[in-house]
Amino acid sequence: MTRRSGRRSSSRNAKRLAGPGYRQIRNPYEPLEVLSPEAVERIHDGAMMILENDGMRIMDPDARRILTEAGFDVDEGSHIARFDRAGIMEAVAKTPSTVSVRGRDPAKRVEIGGGAMAFTAVGGPPFVSDLKGGRRRGNHADMCDFLRLTHMLDILHIEGGCSIDPSDLPAESRHLDFYLACCTLTDKPWKPLSVGRDRAADALAMARIVYGEDDAQLAADPVFFINTNTNTPLVLDPEIAVGIMEFARAGQPVCVTPFALSGAMAPVTLAGALALQTAETLAACALVQAVRPGCPYVYGSFTSNVDMRTGSPAFGTPEYTLAAQASGQMARYYDLPWRSSNVNTSNAPDAQAAYESEMSLWGAVTGHVGVLNQGAGWLESGLVASFEKLILDAEMLQMMAAWMDGFTVDDESLGLGAISEVGPGGHFFGTAHTLERYTDAFYAPLVSDWSNFETWTEKGAQDAAQRAHVLWQQMLADYTPPPLDESVREALEAYVVRRKEEIGRSAT
Amino acid sequence: MTRRSGRRSSSRNAKRLAGPGYRQIRNPYEPLEVLSPEAVERIHDGAMMILENDGMRIMDPDARRILTEAGFDVDEGSHIARFDRAGIMEAVAKTPSTVSVRGRDPAKRVEIGGGAMAFTAVGGPPFVSDLKGGRRRGNHADMCDFLRLTHMLDILHIEGGCSIDPSDLPAESRHLDFYLACCTLTDKPWKPLSVGRDRAADALAMARIVYGEDDAQLAADPVFFINTNTNTPLVLDPEIAVGIMEFARAGQPVCVTPFALSGAMAPVTLAGALALQTAETLAACALVQAVRPGCPYVYGSFTSNVDMRTGSPAFGTPEYTLAAQASGQMARYYDLPWRSSNVNTSNAPDAQAAYESEMSLWGAVTGHVGVLNQGAGWLESGLVASFEKLILDAEMLQMMAAWMDGFTVDDESLGLGAISEVGPGGHFFGTAHTLERYTDAFYAPLVSDWSNFETWTEKGAQDAAQRAHVLWQQMLADYTPPPLDESVREALEAYVVRRKEEIGRSAT
Repeated sequence: MTRRSGRRSSSRNAKRLAGPGYRQIRNPYEPLEVLSPEAVERIHDGAMMILENDGMRIMDPDARRILTEAGFDVDEGSHIARFDRAGIMEAVAKTPSTVSVRGRDPAKRVEIGGGAMAFTAVGGPPFVSDLKGGRRRGNHADMCDFLRLTHMLDILHIEGGCSIDPSDLPAESRHLDFYLACCTLTDKPWKPLSVGRDRAADALAMARIVYGEDDAQLAADPVFFINTNTNTPLVLDPEIAVGIMEFARAGQPVCVTPFALSGAMAPVTLAGALALQTAETLAACALVQAVRPGCPYVYGSFTSNVDMRTGSPAFGTPEYTLAAQASGQMARYYDLPWRSSNVNTSNAPDAQAAYESEMSLWGAVTGHVGVLNQGAGWLESGLVASFEKLILDAEMLQMMAAWMDGFTVDDESLGLGAISEVGPGGHFFGTAHTLERYTDAFYAPLVSDWSNFETWTEKGAQDAAQRAHVLWQQMLADYTPPPLDESVREALEAYVVRRKEEIGRSAT
Repeated sequence: MTRRSGRRSSSRNAKRLAGPGYRQIRNPYEPLEVLSPEAVERIHDGAMMILENDGMRIMDPDARRILTEAGFDVDEGSHIARFDRAGIMEAVAKTPSTVSVRGRDPAKRVEIGGGAMAFTAVGGPPFVSDLKGGRRRGNHADMCDFLRLTHMLDILHIEGGCSIDPSDLPAESRHLDFYLACCTLTDKPWKPLSVGRDRAADALAMARIVYGEDDAQLAADPVFFINTNTNTPLVLDPEIAVGIMEFARAGQPVCVTPFALSGAMAPVTLAGALALQTAETLAACALVQAVRPGCPYVYGSFTSNVDMRTGSPAFGTPEYTLAAQASGQMARYYDLPWRSSNVNTSNAPDAQAAYESEMSLWGAVTGHVGVLNQGAGWLESGLVASFEKLILDAEMLQMMAAWMDGFTVDDESLGLGAISEVGPGGHFFGTAHTLERYTDAFYAPLVSDWSNFETWTEKGAQDAAQRAHVLWQQMLADYTPPPLDESVREALEAYVVRRKEEIGRSAT
């Protein structure tokens, strides 16, 4: 009987997920600022000096040519491009301060920047784990399941950028399987892979099929969010540059995030790491604007610190939170949308995973993040996509969204009449004021258990991760794919088959 | 071997706890405001209308007499006191905007209010739990162990107000055993019990012994923090009123916290709950100021919501965070220090416990809390003091403190020289800029494990709660009591023996 009621409860929860619906999240409060205006100016000035004096090594010849044509000082011997601050600020000025991205369901459109924020699932982990199945190499079946859950969780606005690497598929063509899954298993916007020209071209080709639009239409109303990185310090990888330029030509929003790990690839001081991060992301912004002026670009931040005893990265630390909020300030200084993350260093979906994630989340949300990358499912410093953490993160994100809904203060909500009616020593359960409002007065949790100890024990004394395990399995059982025109599906599948053949031929 | 290295590591951690030392925490950033100035005014006006029209039932005749003498309108038939807004605002104006509290170690002094904050341990749970010992009734041995750990954890400024009820001792005199433990096992400030005249008088008598000071000296430089509550809605219990007045006469800081549970003892709307909370805590403030003008008083808040399906309270919800930040705004409106809490609804020291606690903590800290009650160890909506949660909370509090330390932006910290020196593609591990700073560049965790999966697995794959279990046991093994003059100890013990005899005689 306990099990039965547990199942009913899970089923209710699974439906409740879809309840609030896909909706825009917006922070109505002032951003929390950890830097003085003078400190922002100094970090800006430091970034400009790095760009002017040290420059950045641009590994791709096309990118160097485009930067030269845009008037930047490129040394073809060292491959170093130096960027004058006037040129950088011109590029920044060309960049829109907000952008919206849409899924193939027209209702699934999300604005980014200016307080409007989009939450995404985790992207990139080579491993996957769940409480029963354990930790394993990424594979296509898990990738698809994770994508189904990403689709079902209304709080996630954008797919994560391949939440689980399908390492059981050939490396040269697995991006096509990932793209096909994004086109068929969800109708939300998704994040194509950004490394190399072909992966970009395939994403754009499949978008033309799904949306039935040409490049100009897709550019006028973007469908992708492109997230990639520099090789900090001060290197732009050739394949990444090619990917950036391909998507920028198509007018899709690009975000380049320096992996500025303080103490390792960046100075041990947050000030230095932030100056370096700012220099690198603005250099990439200049490249994007040189390719296509006005292309949406998002200031990318990921600054954290290493564990100085081991050199390994740590996430969700106090330094991470500070760097996030400071990054938000830098992005606002340039009037650019800002990307941050929901990250942690834990090896299990436990208290550490939760409190480190909350440190990341509060940094992002109070800093007015535009795109929260790695928003749900990240574990083990990003090596693992965890099914249980996906659910726990969805709860944390939903709670942040409810917090941003705020509350109303007016005559009705003050309820002075109800207070007089109840009087000293009474209670409010039965008042009209309560009865009119109680069904949706408060946030309804997804996986949090508010039972008392006795009831919780009767239900099996499951901790939050164990309940999350039950919940995601129940959700998967309830999954139905979003409708897709059969001719579109066939065209997508034909494209993938043809491209795999081409890739196969070129590989042999 | 694994176990051994685990133990060494724990021992290092135990020492690291004492590392940062007992220090003042201060929020250097702007408070996060969820209410417009107009909304603050409306809640204030609502509170004033409640106090003027509905008033509050004051159960103690002495308290009614004092309020009458102070000019408030008291009905001796209904026991309802009505408070005019001029009288309330006069009382508020008499109340200091900050207060400091000291322990018997003169170095353990903490300021409260105006951005300065004090963290306290959990107070009041009837149950105690730990991972190995399980959940059990509160008892004297566990109470003393919890107090020892509270003493050792530098991040906790003030004892929690009896973290575990010693239910194995006689109810009439167990406060004396608790007070004796506070006087001997720690040298931090502590929170005496606030219900009834004798419990207050005993605390003050024992303070005179410990500090070797008279009442005037103790009032001039307070040693206690008194936290108690109204019986929301709009009732002040007689024994609580007596306790408040006794401590107010002694000039010790008093905080009265309405248990304004939205949907049950308070309106289902946060606006209404906050108006009611404000009315009640200001009524208590008026009583305190009538007893002793200028006595430190702290605006008490605890507004959360119930689970509307069951009527049971929920903590660490989005509504809780909003109510906390709004309460901070109300307290600032009156220029009063503000009390909030670190609470959650979880039955286990798991991810839910951590993310709900973080929702509470961020509400408190961004709202510029003065005293964080229930700061460490709270589980099961306050029914349980958890040894593991104590450690997890200490980590979360330390992380918040590190976040509030912020970071420096100047020429040295920008490190442009180091960035040039390293150049594109290099790393910063070996630079002078790093080597000069790396030992204390970043927050060093207490219980967070930043190992990679393989190392973590070799160490036993312990989650955060399991590591916390090892850690608190190691700490207890390392505990040494703070020095105490033998004559003082003897005087305290003699006082307790004498009072127990008196209580025993009066009980028979």
